[in-house]
Amino acid sequence: MKPVHPLSDLSFAELQQAVEIVKQLHGQTELVFKAVTLEEPPKNRVIKYLHAEQNGLSLPQIPRVAFAAYYFKGTDTFITTYVDLSSGLVERTERMGPKYHGNVDFKEVVHVEGMVMKNPAVIEEIKKLQLPSHLMVIPEAWGFGTDGVDDAKRLYQVYMFVGEKSNPDSNHYARPLAFSPVVDPVKMTVIRIDQIPTGRDWKTSDTAPWRYVPPNEYVPEETNLRKDLKPLHVVQPSGPSYAINSDNVITWQKWHARIGFNYREGVVLRDVRYDGRPIFYRISLSEMTVPYADPRSPYHRKQAFDLGDVGAGLVSNNLKLGCDCLGAITYLDGLLVSPEGQPVVKENVICVHEQDNGIGWKHSNYRTDRACVVRNRELVIQQILTVSNYEYILAFILNQAGEVHYEVRATGILSTAAIDPGCSVPWGTIVHDGVLAQHHQHLLSLRIDPALGSFTDGNRLAYSECYAMPMDDFNPHGNGYISKTTLVEKAGGIDLDAATNRVFMIQNAQILNPVNKLPIAYKIHAPPMQKILAHPDSYHFKRAEFADHNIYVTKYRHDELFSGGKYTNQSRGGEGITSWVARGDHVVDEDIVIWVQFGLNHVPRIEDFPVMPVEILKVSLKPVNFFERNPSVDVPPSRQEFNLSTLVDHGAVTTRCCDGDVRRE
Amino acid sequence: MKPVHPLSDLSFAELQQAVEIVKQLHGQTELVFKAVTLEEPPKNRVIKYLHAEQNGLSLPQIPRVAFAAYYFKGTDTFITTYVDLSSGLVERTERMGPKYHGNVDFKEVVHVEGMVMKNPAVIEEIKKLQLPSHLMVIPEAWGFGTDGVDDAKRLYQVYMFVGEKSNPDSNHYARPLAFSPVVDPVKMTVIRIDQIPTGRDWKTSDTAPWRYVPPNEYVPEETNLRKDLKPLHVVQPSGPSYAINSDNVITWQKWHARIGFNYREGVVLRDVRYDGRPIFYRISLSEMTVPYADPRSPYHRKQAFDLGDVGAGLVSNNLKLGCDCLGAITYLDGLLVSPEGQPVVKENVICVHEQDNGIGWKHSNYRTDRACVVRNRELVIQQILTVSNYEYILAFILNQAGEVHYEVRATGILSTAAIDPGCSVPWGTIVHDGVLAQHHQHLLSLRIDPALGSFTDGNRLAYSECYAMPMDDFNPHGNGYISKTTLVEKAGGIDLDAATNRVFMIQNAQILNPVNKLPIAYKIHAPPMQKILAHPDSYHFKRAEFADHNIYVTKYRHDELFSGGKYTNQSRGGEGITSWVARGDHVVDEDIVIWVQFGLNHVPRIEDFPVMPVEILKVSLKPVNFFERNPSVDVPPSRQEFNLSTLVDHGAVTTRCCDGDVRRE
Repeated sequence: MKPVHPLSDLSFAELQQAVEIVKQLHGQTELVFKAVTLEEPPKNRVIKYLHAEQNGLSLPQIPRVAFAAYYFKGTDTFITTYVDLSSGLVERTERMGPKYHGNVDFKEVVHVEGMVMKNPAVIEEIKKLQLPSHLMVIPEAWGFGTDGVDDAKRLYQVYMFVGEKSNPDSNHYARPLAFSPVVDPVKMTVIRIDQIPTGRDWKTSDTAPWRYVPPNEYVPEETNLRKDLKPLHVVQPSGPSYAINSDNVITWQKWHARIGFNYREGVVLRDVRYDGRPIFYRISLSEMTVPYADPRSPYHRKQAFDLGDVGAGLVSNNLKLGCDCLGAITYLDGLLVSPEGQPVVKENVICVHEQDNGIGWKHSNYRTDRACVVRNRELVIQQILTVSNYEYILAFILNQAGEVHYEVRATGILSTAAIDPGCSVPWGTIVHDGVLAQHHQHLLSLRIDPALGSFTDGNRLAYSECYAMPMDDFNPHGNGYISKTTLVEKAGGIDLDAATNRVFMIQNAQILNPVNKLPIAYKIHAPPMQKILAHPDSYHFKRAEFADHNIYVTKYRHDELFSGGKYTNQSRGGEGITSWVARGDHVVDEDIVIWVQFGLNHVPRIEDFPVMPVEILKVSLKPVNFFERNPSVDVPPSRQEFNLSTLVDHGAVTTRCCDGDVRRE
Repeated sequence: MKPVHPLSDLSFAELQQAVEIVKQLHGQTELVFKAVTLEEPPKNRVIKYLHAEQNGLSLPQIPRVAFAAYYFKGTDTFITTYVDLSSGLVERTERMGPKYHGNVDFKEVVHVEGMVMKNPAVIEEIKKLQLPSHLMVIPEAWGFGTDGVDDAKRLYQVYMFVGEKSNPDSNHYARPLAFSPVVDPVKMTVIRIDQIPTGRDWKTSDTAPWRYVPPNEYVPEETNLRKDLKPLHVVQPSGPSYAINSDNVITWQKWHARIGFNYREGVVLRDVRYDGRPIFYRISLSEMTVPYADPRSPYHRKQAFDLGDVGAGLVSNNLKLGCDCLGAITYLDGLLVSPEGQPVVKENVICVHEQDNGIGWKHSNYRTDRACVVRNRELVIQQILTVSNYEYILAFILNQAGEVHYEVRATGILSTAAIDPGCSVPWGTIVHDGVLAQHHQHLLSLRIDPALGSFTDGNRLAYSECYAMPMDDFNPHGNGYISKTTLVEKAGGIDLDAATNRVFMIQNAQILNPVNKLPIAYKIHAPPMQKILAHPDSYHFKRAEFADHNIYVTKYRHDELFSGGKYTNQSRGGEGITSWVARGDHVVDEDIVIWVQFGLNHVPRIEDFPVMPVEILKVSLKPVNFFERNPSVDVPPSRQEFNLSTLVDHGAVTTRCCDGDVRRE
């Protein structure tokens, strides 16, 4: 039997085995699984394995361990168990205390929504609306959030909307209602119905007859579509330049990476190397939180954790259905576990393809007029998450200049609330008659576990800044300025500073560039981010532990993967990065982990409705003195025989040959 | 005869006419032309014309006026003349004073370089190098810059390098020398030879035998090229979706714009409208300055103004030669005037094409699993400038969501200086043996003349910021935050502030969004920029008038197009935006102009050599409550029948039909 790589995701059979062992632990008790996934093997052991693998030595044995999180069905008993699949034994099992909850899952969400619509009190409330017969109420269950009142109880806040009976995809966000059932999913009952304020203050009213509001649809059959868009095809007649083996190891233009997928993070890249040289041990999105700005109940609890609460892998789109990718595409499946414990293939959760991103480099010698130019070919490894109303398109993008980009596109539909006509509030924008889209922040945390040039050397975090030289005898004309590099000594949070052009770099000081003797490094280009606005005493702030600094650095510890904590659903904080940096670890020439925070403060505009044009964010990781020259200098020249562009005249299409002849067709 | 649109560039015949009239003004005196170009007609008259044009009224007559800047050949006599082509009369002519110089032109540069190589003192200096016989000296003439000493005299600083005789495109920047002739181009003589410091201080040495340094080439014939890059074609079988008429008016996906081209700015977009609604009267790159950080003579004068000094149009690449664009491309020519006054067609200076930029918007309804997705098709209008060592790829990018992006890619070759082996300095990076790449800033200024929703309404500049609400009875959970908009009352410079998420918006308060009653607006996403580091008393600072603030706003005045001043070559400052804002104009509901500064502080890394992978900067202009909903909601759904993607398996290419059948080829 072919040995399993220690970094491979758990296979179908391994998941079955894990579930079986867990079930045996609990006899007849029916279990509801929230997660069954690979427990990362200890890093030092993996590194020995990678070294042996790369040097043709005999491969050490590393046990395959599964992590499972589950409930006793119909109870709040939440248990986590680690199973050693190699020995078949339970490593440890723990009943989690009352402050820990498992993630939301959309099967439960749909179940809760169905139950709510049958609840007599809810039905009574709906009757008061006196809806026209062609309309119906659409429920949408949200994780309850946290307010320090009753966080030990796992609950749902079910927001209510109005939709068209005739169109199951009518945009119900255009017609929000002002009452909201609260559900206990363990007992599967409605425990109360909240009235929601719709004015400028906390005042609520009883449910009254619904004021007619026209629809605002995004589905194509309700839209007068443009007719003048001509097709654009991306064609690779010889196929793409990448290869992916059966273990999802991808090789492309000197890059090597293992593409992993799990219920929590979705895509993870491991063992990322360029031209055989290690760069990253592991890189993944660690968390994303979306706190909302409306201070009034129940909105004070409105704060999604889009990885921890719902599981990015669990909510990944099947990319087959939507024609999401253009060109020559490879789709990869993911393996998850159903609430019943059955391994499930989630098809086409990852798409891989190349794309052209314009010119890569160019120079023309003005003396000879000779132009040398190459194109910027990129490799895209992409997933798309749907978290109720919102979509996030997440992509790792690699290029031939040794750069790794992490691109996030926010799209989907604004979360909306009912507002009285003619009313306006400073914490949101009116996007439709009677519809308030509240301000919110999207705050993401990218976890980078570097291995610059080596898997065993320690790394360090530094930042470079530029300062004007004083205007003096050495700098008499006042134009001089210098760059200065500062080392980060201890674990903690640090910020960007545009005024000094502060640029963070991960360095390996054990390996110096042979030409300029500077340590090999990768720098981080992160977009500016307004830190979380919620008050430091608020739960919003306490839960989003990473969101108060642009950069965090910690010393590596096993199981410190999620900067907002491992269990975010109705969390209270205190389990994430804040406590890790409190250790005060020394982080120079150590096994360090860098966390890059980025995001956007979303002050909605009407153009974001009924569905939002993508807002694009990008974090870029670029080599600094890691190579000896531009790593893309050996990309073949951009040539017409290779590119086959066509010349378009005013009205006629002609074909262009590279020797200058133009044949008109 | 078909009437000429007042915003059209001067035609071949008009340029001939202008030159003829100017020549007649000066009798027998031979002239050297630096520029002959359209003088923008008075804005109020153009607006009346546009109104008449759009409403089928009789078109007002607007005189066609040419601006010419030229020298008496062989002298420093610099003259500017305005010619009314409609009447055939000279409007005004002026001998420019000693602080004004015309732009550098590359014909003169090449002439200067040739002369230098024949100069006896230079030949003597070269002999001292004792170069191996296969190597030669390559001169590179730079505009002299400014230091307050002798700026009235137009000079060149000629930097010297070593190149391979066998390769006219050998990378001479890899072998810089330490002596530099200074040339008077009027007398066409070498007036002195500067010795350049090569250590850590101002100390210079006499020219000594050259220390061998290996080459560092970028040309493909000297490189071991990658062999595994597969072709990627962009094909538009029905042609592109845009149309360009004979006056270079482009229409695409509800956009309308006039594409202009002149010697100074290169591409200018005028009369930019979406769905018939005006948005921008004029938008163009106004200036770009590149000040260097080395305090030592002659580098204290090293500061390029890449539009004003050399003319972006004059240095635009002929895009035919390099296969710079991929897909179905239209090339547009530009019209310039040679130094002799002859109109010259500069071919293929602009390329226009569509491109696909991933997903435009997506939403999946988790209840039905129905995905609605459209792709993000963009229109690119691009030019490429070569300014000695550097290239700038400049593109206007429009999309279907009503957004205008201005993208700048910096590439080409670092400007280098000789440095002693083993030496390092804090104002640059060693990128090759004996080669210092000095730090420098690229500081750009984008000029936006808005006309939001109307050509006649005044506009205003405002900025929105987000602030936490106090934690009190109204906001007891501390999550609340608000957005607050501040109006900019007077002309001046203002900055970004990531801490408050300050976002600038151009608004028209006379037109309110019908749904939320907010003024229609366009917001500006500008990347963070470290302001110019040079001391405020320095010439670097005084000349780069725009580079000390992220945003400037002025009240429109005719001939206030170039924020660094109209004549930048060896300028002293005082002619640009600083003096315009000093007027203290009121800018609320007025004819205002916005200047967006952006750029990068380039601390070189070795990966930027021998040629630099593109560094990409983008300014985005996005509608805010300008429309009533997402303007791209009517883009047809992304479908396989339209997109014809292909499915790539591990190893085999299959064709995918949208109904799910997979045929293996």
